[in-house]
Amino acid sequence: MQSDKPMLQLALDTLDLDTALEFTRLVAEVVDIIEVGTILCLAEGLSAVKTIKTLYPDRLVLADVRIAEAGGLISKMVFEAGANWVSVLSSATLSTMEVVAKEAFSHGGEVQIELQEDWTMENAMKWQALGIKQVIIHRSRDTEKAGMSWGSKDLDIVKDLSDKGFKVSVTGKLSIDDIAVFKGIPVYAFVAGRAIRDAGNPTQAAKDFQNAIKATWS
Amino acid sequence: MQSDKPMLQLALDTLDLDTALEFTRLVAEVVDIIEVGTILCLAEGLSAVKTIKTLYPDRLVLADVRIAEAGGLISKMVFEAGANWVSVLSSATLSTMEVVAKEAFSHGGEVQIELQEDWTMENAMKWQALGIKQVIIHRSRDTEKAGMSWGSKDLDIVKDLSDKGFKVSVTGKLSIDDIAVFKGIPVYAFVAGRAIRDAGNPTQAAKDFQNAIKATWS
Repeated sequence: MQSDKPMLQLALDTLDLDTALEFTRLVAEVVDIIEVGTILCLAEGLSAVKTIKTLYPDRLVLADVRIAEAGGLISKMVFEAGANWVSVLSSATLSTMEVVAKEAFSHGGEVQIELQEDWTMENAMKWQALGIKQVIIHRSRDTEKAGMSWGSKDLDIVKDLSDKGFKVSVTGKLSIDDIAVFKGIPVYAFVAGRAIRDAGNPTQAAKDFQNAIKATWS
Repeated sequence: MQSDKPMLQLALDTLDLDTALEFTRLVAEVVDIIEVGTILCLAEGLSAVKTIKTLYPDRLVLADVRIAEAGGLISKMVFEAGANWVSVLSSATLSTMEVVAKEAFSHGGEVQIELQEDWTMENAMKWQALGIKQVIIHRSRDTEKAGMSWGSKDLDIVKDLSDKGFKVSVTGKLSIDDIAVFKGIPVYAFVAGRAIRDAGNPTQAAKDFQNAIKATWS
């Protein structure tokens, strides 16, 4: 599944499972990772994760439950539902990270830390010492609000985390035009939600993302 | 609902709704607030909140979804499911707090900020400026792990937040014996989960909590 080329992750943040399935039906075979978003998990419960994994056993499935506490129990539920990856907030305590990592690894799964505003590299290295390899970074709200693409500050952070050994995914209203901005920067996965779901032809939109990734990383 | 005497909140962190209902059936009329915990929300989806509120319309219902992001949409879902209160993590951005507060107030609801390790009083005053009145504080893990009751440091924080105008709830493996420790300190609600659910007689355990509160605040 892993390669030098970034993967494409479909974010499913619909309000119910059936609406999500309308899109997975069209794009599941084109994307690499299917993210069952926080909103969908809350709307439907973790049975949504189970249904998605049952339908698409060959896709990586991220349960984006954003663990803050009770990490052992939540991650157990998530991996038993069939998820490959689980998300944890960077503001969770190190002991929460530790129990989540232990649970994830016992299922052959991975942990993805969602970098919130106040994350520090010092903490990131502690997560890495626990065996956690993935982080996900959101485009800074300021550039997003200003309608700008990813800024050099964002890109430097991605590069820095990658240099330190992390697999870094990026998210935040990504469009196909944003992909080329990351040329030369190691990105683990690009997350796209509305850019695929709101497209007139979601299958083609997902293919266009993959083609833009291939073109930039060729 | 509000009085000088602290309220009693039942935390429901069961893995499914039916197990939760086994307990609410026994104690809903004794407690003041029913918390639909993060784990139950994830296990069953927000229909769990709807079922609890439908069964117990006169109880306050907290949807403990611990919002980190996407606050507008999640809080809309939560209040439409019938919750009175919604929880938000202290690490959420101020703009997330703002959209949650707006959504909550439009439903006559309230926002409860869960204080994580790195919260600051400076931020707390910004939440208050948004109209957010409730915070919940967890007993420090160190004292919990050491098997000790609430420490004077914890109590000072409760008092300080209360002095600054917050309604402060407290949680963290509370037992009936802990209640008296808070004598003279303004507590908005005591949260009890396992101490009630694991009791041989949950109804009596909830009554014992209420009696301990009455005795301490008489």
